[in-house]
Amino acid sequence: MSLARTATIASFGGRLLKLTHNATTTNCEMAFNLYLPPQAIQDPSQKVPVLIYLSGLTCTADNCSEKGFFQYGASKRGIAVLYPDTSPRGLNIEGENDSWDFGTGAGFYVDAIKPPYDKGYNMYSYVAEELPKTVFAAFKELDSGRVSITGHSMGGHGALTLFLKNPGKYQSVSAFAPIANPINCPWGQKVFSGYFGEDQLEKWKEHDATELVRRWKGPLDILIDVGTGDNFYQQGQLLPENFEKAAKDAGVAGVNIRYQPDYDHSYYTMATFSEDHINHAAKYLFAQ
Amino acid sequence: MSLARTATIASFGGRLLKLTHNATTTNCEMAFNLYLPPQAIQDPSQKVPVLIYLSGLTCTADNCSEKGFFQYGASKRGIAVLYPDTSPRGLNIEGENDSWDFGTGAGFYVDAIKPPYDKGYNMYSYVAEELPKTVFAAFKELDSGRVSITGHSMGGHGALTLFLKNPGKYQSVSAFAPIANPINCPWGQKVFSGYFGEDQLEKWKEHDATELVRRWKGPLDILIDVGTGDNFYQQGQLLPENFEKAAKDAGVAGVNIRYQPDYDHSYYTMATFSEDHINHAAKYLFAQ
Repeated sequence: MSLARTATIASFGGRLLKLTHNATTTNCEMAFNLYLPPQAIQDPSQKVPVLIYLSGLTCTADNCSEKGFFQYGASKRGIAVLYPDTSPRGLNIEGENDSWDFGTGAGFYVDAIKPPYDKGYNMYSYVAEELPKTVFAAFKELDSGRVSITGHSMGGHGALTLFLKNPGKYQSVSAFAPIANPINCPWGQKVFSGYFGEDQLEKWKEHDATELVRRWKGPLDILIDVGTGDNFYQQGQLLPENFEKAAKDAGVAGVNIRYQPDYDHSYYTMATFSEDHINHAAKYLFAQ
Repeated sequence: MSLARTATIASFGGRLLKLTHNATTTNCEMAFNLYLPPQAIQDPSQKVPVLIYLSGLTCTADNCSEKGFFQYGASKRGIAVLYPDTSPRGLNIEGENDSWDFGTGAGFYVDAIKPPYDKGYNMYSYVAEELPKTVFAAFKELDSGRVSITGHSMGGHGALTLFLKNPGKYQSVSAFAPIANPINCPWGQKVFSGYFGEDQLEKWKEHDATELVRRWKGPLDILIDVGTGDNFYQQGQLLPENFEKAAKDAGVAGVNIRYQPDYDHSYYTMATFSEDHINHAAKYLFAQ
């Protein structure tokens, strides 16, 4: 569980730390980034809340750290940002590097049950349990009782499903271009077949935000941004309308999907709206 | 002179355009990016001013467009940002791809006089004359009479030298970690030898910000950020103290160098301070 620090980078008055640790859930060394806002550095006795940002297919912790500008808003509001990686690395499972949308860089925030991926593709347990436990043990300036979650594309799927599967665990959730109904899109069907098996529909549904929101009790306050110029949205990989309809059918209020004209699937979109998502999280992280 | 558009990307309410054109000064097709802020789109009759951002060694127009966060401040203030490339591309001059700090990606914003680089390594004329002429001809929503300049590292050198060599041409100048005295650092000595010749000291001095500020008449208002954690600053490649001292010796006021504790040479630094540099330019671009 011990952490090694590979870099400390000044950013918006705070520090972006590049860290590694040997993770038991994923059975390998994992790298991640942690942004400590200036408030955590100036007064370590004043615990700051944490926003977890889950990245999309092919990404590491670095992409959003460099291009998403979450540090800008996080610095203003006094929120730490935790950027996990997107899959185990170097397990040497046959086929894990054969495609960009399955295996390495595509852990999909699930725990695989199908061999050989069950030997380490456990990004659900890693992100929901092991990583935060490790980080809160090492950084006393972080408040383990105030954690929100967001993410992009595959990471938007991760944020929505982790939130909906664990009522009360996260103070809030938001997403950018989430894969909102994976059991009905090519990306989701490919990875769920590979990690769970083709005949595991109940298991698939456990990790499908649209299926989960159908069973939600009570209100929500979810902020989702989807660009109308997003090619993956246009190709039916994201299906936010299905999520919206499922919530509506179930009488669940508070799903706020903003269709942003012309915005695409890239980090230019996260950069543009990151401050809105930081402020959405801050509303709950700083609620009395 | 005709432009081709290869991409249009929504960013902070405006549009980042990726463009190419056949440039006569550099003897090849050149790519560049242009950010049009929302103000230029909403009311094209209201001309917006332009900030030119010159990139550092190895970069293209894309690095800062993705990582520099300039669109954020430019969108707020209503300023277009022009991101040129850093050298000619594909001239097939022998040796131009042999090192990362000379030739391709390292045009240094000078006009070469030494063969074979004199056949297209004319980034001074390209940035000072041909590119803006091309852009203003194509985009009537830009105000050719209000142009400021900034840049990073090699591009900080470019910004300072283009400003100091052309009084009145630019409304303001700023720089991040500029190579401020190239005739006295390894990077500068290597490229000036290659583009000008080893025995061309007078020519070298024409493109050295420290030499140019010695001869400046009147006040200045230059904002420069240098990170104290910048390895190239520590290695003596930047030499901002020489620039500062030369200005002081010459009685030139208004050189404001901020040594930012722990910041490094990366885009995390530009992202952090980009809004300050946008505001510095805005002070002059919107002066009555």
